[in-house]
Amino acid sequence: MDLELLKELTIEADTKIVLVVLDGLGGLPHPETGRTELETASIPNLDQLAREGVCGLTVPVGPGITPGSGPGHLALFGYDPLRYQVGRGVLEALGIDFDLQPGDVAARGNFCTVDERGIITDRRAGRISTERCAQLVDKLRGIEAEGVRALVEPVREHRFLLVLRGEGLSHQVADTDPQREGLAPLPPRATAPEGERTARAVERFVAEAASRLQGEPEANMVLLRGFSSCPRWPTMREVFKLKAAAVAYYPMYRGLGKLVGMEPLPSGPRLEDAIASLRENWGRFDFFFLHYKATDTAGEDGDFQRKVQALEAADRAIPALLELEPDVLMVTGDHSTPAVMASHSWHPVPFVMRAPWARADGCQAFNEVALRQGSLGVFPAVDVMPLALAHARRLKKFGA
Amino acid sequence: MDLELLKELTIEADTKIVLVVLDGLGGLPHPETGRTELETASIPNLDQLAREGVCGLTVPVGPGITPGSGPGHLALFGYDPLRYQVGRGVLEALGIDFDLQPGDVAARGNFCTVDERGIITDRRAGRISTERCAQLVDKLRGIEAEGVRALVEPVREHRFLLVLRGEGLSHQVADTDPQREGLAPLPPRATAPEGERTARAVERFVAEAASRLQGEPEANMVLLRGFSSCPRWPTMREVFKLKAAAVAYYPMYRGLGKLVGMEPLPSGPRLEDAIASLRENWGRFDFFFLHYKATDTAGEDGDFQRKVQALEAADRAIPALLELEPDVLMVTGDHSTPAVMASHSWHPVPFVMRAPWARADGCQAFNEVALRQGSLGVFPAVDVMPLALAHARRLKKFGA
Repeated sequence: MDLELLKELTIEADTKIVLVVLDGLGGLPHPETGRTELETASIPNLDQLAREGVCGLTVPVGPGITPGSGPGHLALFGYDPLRYQVGRGVLEALGIDFDLQPGDVAARGNFCTVDERGIITDRRAGRISTERCAQLVDKLRGIEAEGVRALVEPVREHRFLLVLRGEGLSHQVADTDPQREGLAPLPPRATAPEGERTARAVERFVAEAASRLQGEPEANMVLLRGFSSCPRWPTMREVFKLKAAAVAYYPMYRGLGKLVGMEPLPSGPRLEDAIASLRENWGRFDFFFLHYKATDTAGEDGDFQRKVQALEAADRAIPALLELEPDVLMVTGDHSTPAVMASHSWHPVPFVMRAPWARADGCQAFNEVALRQGSLGVFPAVDVMPLALAHARRLKKFGA
Repeated sequence: MDLELLKELTIEADTKIVLVVLDGLGGLPHPETGRTELETASIPNLDQLAREGVCGLTVPVGPGITPGSGPGHLALFGYDPLRYQVGRGVLEALGIDFDLQPGDVAARGNFCTVDERGIITDRRAGRISTERCAQLVDKLRGIEAEGVRALVEPVREHRFLLVLRGEGLSHQVADTDPQREGLAPLPPRATAPEGERTARAVERFVAEAASRLQGEPEANMVLLRGFSSCPRWPTMREVFKLKAAAVAYYPMYRGLGKLVGMEPLPSGPRLEDAIASLRENWGRFDFFFLHYKATDTAGEDGDFQRKVQALEAADRAIPALLELEPDVLMVTGDHSTPAVMASHSWHPVPFVMRAPWARADGCQAFNEVALRQGSLGVFPAVDVMPLALAHARRLKKFGA
């Protein structure tokens, strides 16, 4: 569904929509039991939602496509992730709560090791500690050339964020990271005429950084990739007429919400924390995105049992959410992270929506197999928002 | 999913994908038993695949659209059949293993009967025998004009293949077949300026053919349609990074594989023959398309029982396929050919994929009704390739 069409159809209403994202929700069967994480967990409240709501499985980006966190969330917010793409540099900035300004150009940086001839011998500089990274980043502060300031912040291990700030900058600059060892870093190069000035600024930054890092045993050079600017997308307020809030413990997810105009709200790591934040701000917003990370972290760690426990902990928080009586309550994930794969995956993601006009479809449990029988079938995640708006009585009739 | 996007996401891997196409697989219930061909057949091995794999029904081209062999296969190869269209002339050439060269223009020819005024009285020249067709085609060999050679080959009954070979040819020529009796053949006409030269060559060919056929009691004229050139599409190697092989008994299907860069491999008519060819070439390729025709032939003949037997024969070959331990094994069809219709049809086609990370979805049998409950739902056949690549761990994550 095109955002332009939705914009025409959305109307204001006195209804509240809550979207709970259990990160990496979907799973795969444990080889010993044949049951997925959801099938293993005791989740009576989610099962009850499945019995009362309209159910299905979402496809975040497309069949077979494993989404990163950006595309997975943007789809749920109603923004086609193939059309609305976030650059790596911007995502890094979101992830550390860096306040990107319009016109800033962000890039993901790696400290790396080069030999005396300038050839990369370790793209990750021996995976130096985060503390060491912070010390090295301090060495790189204050670099400025031709009116362009280079702002740097440590991220984790060998990773840092570079933000160029100044007039007339462009993200049209190619990666300097050749993605392989045994090569020299690539010289900064504009990919379009408007990137020339930025490429020169990057060149100066890299030269000065190399000079300041000289003599370091491991981290004696930098690699940059994913030059990108904060996108200027239509906000959820503009498109959906929703005052939206992003309730998340990790900055990345508040940041993804901010990209579409959500107001970030603080939270703790537990779903109860997010719900407490929700309760405090209940009157101020129409739409709440609640993010819960523990399911994904356990999945990424390949820890089946911890993912089961994370699901059970989320389930226990559901009654507190129901007490707020949202008009539309959705529980889903941004993608699957099966513990047996220890990574994000392409598998469709469990979805339930509870609302007054949701037609219960006979699903008896909240898991990958049972929800398949739901009346939404296997459907694109980008369709979640129009469905939520409809159930919140926020879409008018199309055509006469 | 756009081929350009898939091209960006595909990576090399040491995994093997096998796609078994049981031609015309899907069926409809026999009026006496209420059971389809698949529901009637004893197919324990396919049923076992359905229990272990991820299941669904594919829509080859679009809802309600009955595909020819070209679109049905191209969709399964990952090429949107609405975008990647093969001309009738090229299909005829593929069907008789004619080695089309770049720049050749192919057309489907019919021998027809015209009266003394040149009006068509029989568009199929009384459906002359294939032997007679071959004799008449011999009469037409060696026609050449203005540096353009006209190559002709018999096909079947009144059908033949015309291939124009020379410099600067174009497929921009309209059919000479008016598709109705009681009219004269249409004069060859360019549909764009670049077709002018080709239209003149066609005119010469038709005039010379009419002259050589003069006095024939039935086949005294030719009709031409479907002028087309061999398309230059991105190959499966370019897009999917797959070394692919087409294992098929009939040249048409090897030819369809060649269009997307598959290497053709010989086979006999049985699925066992294809598997034997597969085994011999197992080390050389990453992707194997195996074609089995008997199901479609029986369906086209309206022979329900023979289609049941063809399914059972295919089923018996499955264990030999499993012994090769493909990472991803898919069994499906290019379209449905219900015996009760005695023709291709638009009905969605049974599909199963068995792979380590395929989430079994509780389907208990391989047939049109049971597979409907699979977690892939009813889905476009063009999505089969991205799903196969994902399960073969040949797609990297989209977005960060």
